[in-house]
Amino acid sequence: MSSSDRFSGVLAPVITPFKTDLSIDTERLIKHCQWLRSQQVGLAVFGTNSEANSLSTTEKIQVLDRLTEAGIDPDAMMPGTGCCALSDSVSLTSHAVKLGCRGVLMLPPFFYKGVSDDGLYANYSQIIERVAEANLRLYLYHIPAFSGVGISVALIDRLVRDYPQTIAGIKDSSGDWENTKSYLDGGWDDFKVFCGSESFLLANMQNGGAGCISATANVNPAAIANLYQQWSSPGADDLQHELNKIRVIFQSLPMIAALKSATAICSGDDNWYRVRPPLTSLDEQSLQQLRQLLDDAQFTMAGL
Amino acid sequence: MSSSDRFSGVLAPVITPFKTDLSIDTERLIKHCQWLRSQQVGLAVFGTNSEANSLSTTEKIQVLDRLTEAGIDPDAMMPGTGCCALSDSVSLTSHAVKLGCRGVLMLPPFFYKGVSDDGLYANYSQIIERVAEANLRLYLYHIPAFSGVGISVALIDRLVRDYPQTIAGIKDSSGDWENTKSYLDGGWDDFKVFCGSESFLLANMQNGGAGCISATANVNPAAIANLYQQWSSPGADDLQHELNKIRVIFQSLPMIAALKSATAICSGDDNWYRVRPPLTSLDEQSLQQLRQLLDDAQFTMAGL
Repeated sequence: MSSSDRFSGVLAPVITPFKTDLSIDTERLIKHCQWLRSQQVGLAVFGTNSEANSLSTTEKIQVLDRLTEAGIDPDAMMPGTGCCALSDSVSLTSHAVKLGCRGVLMLPPFFYKGVSDDGLYANYSQIIERVAEANLRLYLYHIPAFSGVGISVALIDRLVRDYPQTIAGIKDSSGDWENTKSYLDGGWDDFKVFCGSESFLLANMQNGGAGCISATANVNPAAIANLYQQWSSPGADDLQHELNKIRVIFQSLPMIAALKSATAICSGDDNWYRVRPPLTSLDEQSLQQLRQLLDDAQFTMAGL
Repeated sequence: MSSSDRFSGVLAPVITPFKTDLSIDTERLIKHCQWLRSQQVGLAVFGTNSEANSLSTTEKIQVLDRLTEAGIDPDAMMPGTGCCALSDSVSLTSHAVKLGCRGVLMLPPFFYKGVSDDGLYANYSQIIERVAEANLRLYLYHIPAFSGVGISVALIDRLVRDYPQTIAGIKDSSGDWENTKSYLDGGWDDFKVFCGSESFLLANMQNGGAGCISATANVNPAAIANLYQQWSSPGADDLQHELNKIRVIFQSLPMIAALKSATAICSGDDNWYRVRPPLTSLDEQSLQQLRQLLDDAQFTMAGL
């Protein structure tokens, strides 16, 4: 990560382990965070791949407390704090900033569809005004396939103009490089653009991007972090190619269940198989397929 | 409403008034609920048109307490209790049942898309098992344009088979009569099918439906309730035609802001204009248009 107060680098939307009663298994989560930190990636806890939208605000606040109490460095944390309800977004964001989290990743409210940029501007500005913390660094989150509500260049223009210290960047999970490019070309000062998949990491860095926040950074963190470090070296294309070979394994299956299954397989800890409804664990056939693909790739999660 | 323990009739997804700081204006909400009851409609508080998904679970629980303390009859209440997080759905549903609410209207978890019927079944069954109240009557909520997650006939089949006492019906806000018809033809015992707009009320009743839960029941409740009473009378077609004339006024504008604006106009109480982000109030041009259309229709909200 950079020495500026804004994030650069690779972050994982940290997968969330559950106990048999589907409550959050905080001890396992702490260990996974510690392992990810040892692999040089930051912690975007409560991302899409964290099943964050299957967790209540109360649960998230409790988990943030437990993580920081356990010594997880809030300077490496960019929790997802964007909820449907303004009141939830405010309380969760406030809590994250008070704990010292270096940034927050913020979905737009995602139930009501066809909302205007005026409405989205009002949402973000209300949150910023109500949290009222000079240390708030807010990264917008564009993931239209799930949220159904996109973040336009015009909206960013207004937010950056009115909150230049606070609006720090964006994560683009559209999977559409042209859209990422439109953010990179926005011309906003020190605005950090993260792609939502390491498949675009090299292209993003070559075009002035800040890094990536990627699901597969949960399982392949060191290699992704290595490309981030080496992107301007002669071997970068090869590193990107190697990353893609692992990425496609996980993209060929339901992503979240596949990440958790790989973690279970590589650690020998079956507790990682659990997901919260409405997600389902991989069926036996998909699990067989995953095992085979990981074997073929000689995939490991060293040190886990 | 019928004398059985399941709802029939007309319910309003009660619009939610806000104070200047955008906190819920419970006193005004109580008065609106009392007025709706006087017009013979039930109270589907925390529906889509209540901006329910812009309210936190904590706020909803507090409001439910206040409404019942104020003497609003829980036997007339079908609060929306389906949230993205299983933990939220359980706590809110539990609270509603303990307060005596006659039913709950339950969205599926709506962030993760492309989820399977197995995952949705697990969500609903986990909620039912964890709430563990014999008095729970659960109405499913199909509104794919907002949730992005639909309720299939096959899913209802499984739920009704395993929870015949609990699964009481469905609200269909697809706006697709063929879909409503597929629920009506499901063959489930005493399964109550509500259409999501009074435009389909007569057709729904003629095909064995239970009534409607409609946005416009906030502003035109008595006339809608009258068609429900008179649906088998010779003049029912004319009543439906009259309802449609009012419905199209509101459908021609952003619905929630238009309902609140009409309430503000008819009551002379400007506090009703407020909405929570990401929604926005009607702009001056739309407001002019609404005033004109209401004038032309000689529209009033008597007794408000």
